[in-house]
Amino acid sequence: MTLEPQSAANQSEVVKKATLAKQAAPRLAALTTEQKNRALQIMADALITETPSIIRANGEDLQRGKDNGISQSLLDRLALNEQRVSAMAEGLRQVVELPDPIGDTLEEFTRPNELHIRKVRVPLGVIGMIYEARPNVTVDAAGLCLKTGNAVVLRGGSSALSSNTRIVEVLHDALSRSEVPVDAIQLITDPDRASVDEMLKLNGLLDVLIPRGGHSLIQNVVRNASVPVIETGAGICHTYIDESAVYEMALQIAINAKVQRPSVCNSMETLLLHDSFAARYLPSLADQFSGLYVELRGCPKARQFVPVIKEATAEDWDTEYNDYILNVRIVDSLDEALAHIRQHSTMHSECIVTEDAVHAARFLQEVDAAAVYHNASTRFTDGFEFGFGAEIGISTQKLHARGPMGLPALTSTKYCVSGNGQIRT
Amino acid sequence: MTLEPQSAANQSEVVKKATLAKQAAPRLAALTTEQKNRALQIMADALITETPSIIRANGEDLQRGKDNGISQSLLDRLALNEQRVSAMAEGLRQVVELPDPIGDTLEEFTRPNELHIRKVRVPLGVIGMIYEARPNVTVDAAGLCLKTGNAVVLRGGSSALSSNTRIVEVLHDALSRSEVPVDAIQLITDPDRASVDEMLKLNGLLDVLIPRGGHSLIQNVVRNASVPVIETGAGICHTYIDESAVYEMALQIAINAKVQRPSVCNSMETLLLHDSFAARYLPSLADQFSGLYVELRGCPKARQFVPVIKEATAEDWDTEYNDYILNVRIVDSLDEALAHIRQHSTMHSECIVTEDAVHAARFLQEVDAAAVYHNASTRFTDGFEFGFGAEIGISTQKLHARGPMGLPALTSTKYCVSGNGQIRT
Repeated sequence: MTLEPQSAANQSEVVKKATLAKQAAPRLAALTTEQKNRALQIMADALITETPSIIRANGEDLQRGKDNGISQSLLDRLALNEQRVSAMAEGLRQVVELPDPIGDTLEEFTRPNELHIRKVRVPLGVIGMIYEARPNVTVDAAGLCLKTGNAVVLRGGSSALSSNTRIVEVLHDALSRSEVPVDAIQLITDPDRASVDEMLKLNGLLDVLIPRGGHSLIQNVVRNASVPVIETGAGICHTYIDESAVYEMALQIAINAKVQRPSVCNSMETLLLHDSFAARYLPSLADQFSGLYVELRGCPKARQFVPVIKEATAEDWDTEYNDYILNVRIVDSLDEALAHIRQHSTMHSECIVTEDAVHAARFLQEVDAAAVYHNASTRFTDGFEFGFGAEIGISTQKLHARGPMGLPALTSTKYCVSGNGQIRT
Repeated sequence: MTLEPQSAANQSEVVKKATLAKQAAPRLAALTTEQKNRALQIMADALITETPSIIRANGEDLQRGKDNGISQSLLDRLALNEQRVSAMAEGLRQVVELPDPIGDTLEEFTRPNELHIRKVRVPLGVIGMIYEARPNVTVDAAGLCLKTGNAVVLRGGSSALSSNTRIVEVLHDALSRSEVPVDAIQLITDPDRASVDEMLKLNGLLDVLIPRGGHSLIQNVVRNASVPVIETGAGICHTYIDESAVYEMALQIAINAKVQRPSVCNSMETLLLHDSFAARYLPSLADQFSGLYVELRGCPKARQFVPVIKEATAEDWDTEYNDYILNVRIVDSLDEALAHIRQHSTMHSECIVTEDAVHAARFLQEVDAAAVYHNASTRFTDGFEFGFGAEIGISTQKLHARGPMGLPALTSTKYCVSGNGQIRT
């Protein structure tokens, strides 16, 4: 697809940088694994060497953030120190160790007319990343995209602009000492939201958009982009404790799913309890959660068992709290649990705790989610926990990639067809 | 995701029918291959039995089309006869023979903590098909979606409304005599374009949209949908004849790529000729094409070799003619050919004709297209020619599926995780 001609002087930063990325893409696709790994090593070394200047730039962001009165949790996510920069460098070194999927032959066959067809993995091309304040996403995304031969256009939150600018300067300098074109990594520095809107419509220059961040950021991209999107994130995850569950296992799984890290997408928001299990154990379960400072909101029946439970509103069942709050609903059957999940799930991660093999099999088969668990915490939905060695995000859509996305999620394929003069009749 | 509550009375046809489809989806996902195949057989039989009533309904469309003065080629595509209805039934029987991808285990591994993880193929859920006047797409899409356990919401061109309505009545009646829920197949009968616009934004009810038809239909969907889209179709395909090509092979491939069926997306629009090859053979090639009633439009150099060639405008190089017109450009190197393709290709199908193995390898590696050919006609980009036994379309995007799409392109995956009480630490 050819874009409208536009004189360079009139081009926005987004178009200019996306064009540079697109021009670099064919050269990136042709790099060997060794060339890419050497560049990743140089990038990692450069981050370590330049730690002081990166922390200095981060200090500007933190000061501006404080002046603008942004929240403490946002400041925490934004803040870099020696340890965090070192972790970013270490992340790049881990990407070096991962197998390079590019060039892999996925299928190969010869047709009766002797056409030889090979389906091979190729880069997606140019990936647009839209994210929030965490500067480590800048390095993660740059490393994963480079390893998969993709160019990347980064648009991080404006609150991290100084940090991101310095980090990308450091990475560019590193690339200039490698065989990878410097244009492989582009950072959009225009803090205006219009630059995001522009990226959403950049068909022909961007091959895919990956939004990472909160609900409103992701929904803005999903709702308004004409560039293909990989939707990540939102998780209203349920744990269903079946009649036959072992109490101690159910308790540990439920507590882990809720409080091990409540702020993340694979944590539990709603606990579904079978009636007879609830009759025996809900008071004890509720005590445990209260002891962990978890506020419980429940259905009328749950409140009959444990009157201190607050009443859950209709909205609560559809809310991703990412906080120390938990909905509790009593159901009288597996079917009722499945129906609740069907209605309220964001299809991220869902769990059944049961000793009943038939119920477990039905749950795994019938629940439509990226990851469905039997007798394990939903917190395991994660690229590292799945053994992928990296994670660009967790896809909650059904196209292309679903669940934790490792390197293959950043690739496409093409058919290479070799003949000896075949024509179609 | 929960949709805004809306009283049934106020719901549009699109929302009503998409809701029915979504409610049917879990039951469809649980069907056995045998249940689906039996339904497909009953559907095929019903089409044969009901051929007269289908042709009668088609007659109404044809009459209305003539009254409205639609083009002869559109009338041709719309028209059904006994043979065409029989071909639709035969298509369903062929789908019966295809392996069912649903339930396949794609990966299976056990983590060090003993979590057992299985990646299995599942249906996408509800597929929205937006297409034009050809009633056979109604049957094709219904059959392929059913075999893959998906519900489908069909929105065909209004010019085929009577045909599609009768066909779907016949298919519904067939399903009512099977174990497949009748709601698996939904037809939108509202001829207003607003019903298409509504489908584009139906996140939460539709899992994917597949547009099939001309450029403007597809671009409307790509540009305006918030539901994930599989882009199909547009093909500005090139054939590059290298210096070392064998004339007779190059001639046959070029003729086949242009005239075997000019109206389709994998036919050639532009012929690139190496300078020295052109010097020897362009006059003869041009004669051959003229003899086949192909109008040639060329670059200045081509017109020096063959003065009767018309001058190609800047726009011509970016036009999918789907007609007996061919652009001809002389290039002085493989690099110039690659640069032209990079600039003008829609990344559908591209071909090099050469005896030079190094040039062939470079072309296959460097050209970024769904299918890249060495010494064979681009016309082979087709699900049947690739041996997939079916084709829902040819994807020209890089996400999810690229190139001819067989049954696996209509599936997603999920991770089934089995544990014995694992929690994350």
